[in-house]
Amino acid sequence: MHTTDALEALIQALRRLPGVGAKSAARMAFHLLQHDRGGAQVLAQALAHAAEQVRHCTRCHTFTQAEVCDTCLDPGRDAARLCVVETPADQSALERTGAFHGLYFVLMGRLSPLDGVGPKDIGVQKLVQRATDGVVQEVILATNFTAEGETTAHVIGEALKARGLVVTRLARGVPVGSELEYVDLGTIAHALADRR
Amino acid sequence: MHTTDALEALIQALRRLPGVGAKSAARMAFHLLQHDRGGAQVLAQALAHAAEQVRHCTRCHTFTQAEVCDTCLDPGRDAARLCVVETPADQSALERTGAFHGLYFVLMGRLSPLDGVGPKDIGVQKLVQRATDGVVQEVILATNFTAEGETTAHVIGEALKARGLVVTRLARGVPVGSELEYVDLGTIAHALADRR
Repeated sequence: MHTTDALEALIQALRRLPGVGAKSAARMAFHLLQHDRGGAQVLAQALAHAAEQVRHCTRCHTFTQAEVCDTCLDPGRDAARLCVVETPADQSALERTGAFHGLYFVLMGRLSPLDGVGPKDIGVQKLVQRATDGVVQEVILATNFTAEGETTAHVIGEALKARGLVVTRLARGVPVGSELEYVDLGTIAHALADRR
Repeated sequence: MHTTDALEALIQALRRLPGVGAKSAARMAFHLLQHDRGGAQVLAQALAHAAEQVRHCTRCHTFTQAEVCDTCLDPGRDAARLCVVETPADQSALERTGAFHGLYFVLMGRLSPLDGVGPKDIGVQKLVQRATDGVVQEVILATNFTAEGETTAHVIGEALKARGLVVTRLARGVPVGSELEYVDLGTIAHALADRR
């Protein structure tokens, strides 16, 4: 009754965003229309532009507007090390450490049989091709330390080892700055086993 | 480096939504580009359309695409009762109860001196004009029971009573279905004072 077609359509469209329910969507629509119509227009254009322009890098699968992304084209990076991550956000976290200077392969997902995500969906075959280019010497598996991330790392690791590649995994251990008393037991057990 | 201009622009634009920080914005952008490009286009169009089309009802201030909203135009509603709410979402909550058949005035905000929101911003003068049309007999204050909502109700109530209008407030009391043990003391005290 009191809502309008355009408003209702906006609320429904906002609900397509992950983590946004009916109340959040209504609050977002209210905020944009009442306080930030310019923001609504900016967001509309950014969405349309990104949906048209953003594609996947043909070498590493991350989002890019070119055929090959800037990272893959950077001659200053160590092409002998290839780091496998689940998402561009994970890649971004690694980049911010400044501790890795090799190249990436972004799976754009993780193995999740329950959700129907199999090896083909995350491009395992493509990763094997990429890693066997004769330049890559070590593949670092940096998938998340969740059940699905571990499974993904295991499956990918087996496929790559079968091709004779050196495969490593990010170390598990106690997070920097944490007190042992508050660290979960599985993490402490791993840190103990991998002590150095 | 690895992000693209269009992707970065989308993430920045998504951060204009209330309650969306850098990580949520990146997750939303990733989801739309990886799994729901159609959703991105739908949302882009809904935003642009709503930002252009949605305006305020000249009688009650709520969002509408016409000059006067459907509720205000409905001849079946009791024009002698006017309910004052903060937002269209609050109006919607009251409508869903099915217990109110009068008309509304939507403040589109609340008094909040610290945020620079004064009586002019929520249209107190317009509300007084609206309520003194000779038809309205009772104004029901249904602003939120927060500090700001109570202040708003007080200021509006004083302005309306000065014009000789009957002003009421939603009853405070124990929520339906709750156990006294878990209800806050202020609520119990109010429920005791207003016992019937």
